Amino acid sequence: NAHIICRTRDFCFVLNSKEVRLKSSPADLVTETDQQVEKMLISAIRRKYPQHRFIGEESVAAGEAVELTDSPTWIIDPIDGTVNFVHRFPFVAVSIAFTVNKQTEFGIVYSCVEDKLFHAQRGRGAYLNGKPLCVSGQTDIHRCVVVTEIGAERDDLALSTMTSNICRLLRLPVQGVRALGTAAVDMCQVATGGADAYYHIGMHCWDIAASTIIVLEAGGVVMDTDGSEFDMMSRKVIAASSSAVANGIAQVVQADSFLGDFSRNRA
Amino acid sequence: NAHIICRTRDFCFVLNSKEVRLKSSPADLVTETDQQVEKMLISAIRRKYPQHRFIGEESVAAGEAVELTDSPTWIIDPIDGTVNFVHRFPFVAVSIAFTVNKQTEFGIVYSCVEDKLFHAQRGRGAYLNGKPLCVSGQTDIHRCVVVTEIGAERDDLALSTMTSNICRLLRLPVQGVRALGTAAVDMCQVATGGADAYYHIGMHCWDIAASTIIVLEAGGVVMDTDGSEFDMMSRKVIAASSSAVANGIAQVVQADSFLGDFSRNRA
Repeated sequence: NAHIICRTRDFCFVLNSKEVRLKSSPADLVTETDQQVEKMLISAIRRKYPQHRFIGEESVAAGEAVELTDSPTWIIDPIDGTVNFVHRFPFVAVSIAFTVNKQTEFGIVYSCVEDKLFHAQRGRGAYLNGKPLCVSGQTDIHRCVVVTEIGAERDDLALSTMTSNICRLLRLPVQGVRALGTAAVDMCQVATGGADAYYHIGMHCWDIAASTIIVLEAGGVVMDTDGSEFDMMSRKVIAASSSAVANGIAQVVQADSFLGDFSRNRA
Repeated sequence: NAHIICRTRDFCFVLNSKEVRLKSSPADLVTETDQQVEKMLISAIRRKYPQHRFIGEESVAAGEAVELTDSPTWIIDPIDGTVNFVHRFPFVAVSIAFTVNKQTEFGIVYSCVEDKLFHAQRGRGAYLNGKPLCVSGQTDIHRCVVVTEIGAERDDLALSTMTSNICRLLRLPVQGVRALGTAAVDMCQVATGGADAYYHIGMHCWDIAASTIIVLEAGGVVMDTDGSEFDMMSRKVIAASSSAVANGIAQVVQADSFLGDFSRNRA
């Protein structure tokens, strides 16, 4: 089973994936570790901030509501990239964002196996292991490397929509499409300038809340896949090095055909 | 421009991508660095082994023949993942294999940014930074993480074939599809057990010669995408944790529709 030693300045533990369970589909896995890490994080934060609210992937999966209010709220994905974690494919992250009045104040993405700590605070820049990050600034979509994920949906409509989107992007053409298997780390590649864009349809707010502020503070732009204003709860996101690239992707990517009536965040 | 410090036991240099040129398509890039690294490697080896032959990506691009003979031959990809290199997407490798009588004796893949050195010698196992590697041993295709690449072709037939293959795989379903942007490093994920399978259509012998022996020595299997015996020069490969998984992928993946008459290795 997977063992990952996860260190940040604030906590240190060994992750053991002892048991793997299926959630919504054969690709939607959860391990005991996901649940343990989330409980540990929430209880540690709650001791210090008893009035704060939480949105956590595993709490929601266990039946808690997904509702972003004006209250101070911690949005937590204990293990982003659970399929990677189970397989030991070496990209797995802990993602934590903090919002007040629905605005993200800071975000942290810790890519455990790579030992890369991404963080950003509103108005204070984005950093990787303490070094400032800046997006590539690329404005020509034909020169872009684009990161995306297929996600866990496996019905025909979802899969044909996802693969058609990739095919249309490649036809533009773009220079390449990459997928590391964790939305949080994928999106942070845009903040580093290593990728020029990231888009994702069907992810949840906990997958991308922290990396959204990291991309924005690195000088990037974030919008909905339909080109409208980004809504963390809409389950659709484009992050890019420039508005030109983000708009270029919005023109190509189609989401509505299968996202339909589950376009609001849910477990 | 991209700067990568590349170290192995035997050579140490700084890579600078000063100039980027297009080869066959907008996604087929070459930098001065590709050419410099290949020249440096070949001249260093030639000094010691003046009778040996070479197959190098950039030499072939410059017009040399691609012919694997019984002579001792070094098969070199100076920078596998040139698009990543140009963009600073952090997966770039130097790949070197050595064959005698068309049989690979050893292979080395150095993933420069990650500082991961994969190597294998025939009959002596596969290693990552000196530690032995073993494939996952997975035999159930529905529990597989599969790595692949779209490649640099951007014509409609190639793209629809590539994305249809991915769509059919996901429909099986498999647990995930990943793409790091370098065939050599992708394929080494199978040797580590982090991924259960890798397939690629349209790559060249220099992309996968070294990682093939690394997968085999880690206990994996390698075959053609049509299920027949692996031929390094056929531009098609499946590497997997088991024969069952490799055959499962061979049943899904289609190559012939567009690979057609360029199914022999060429620049």
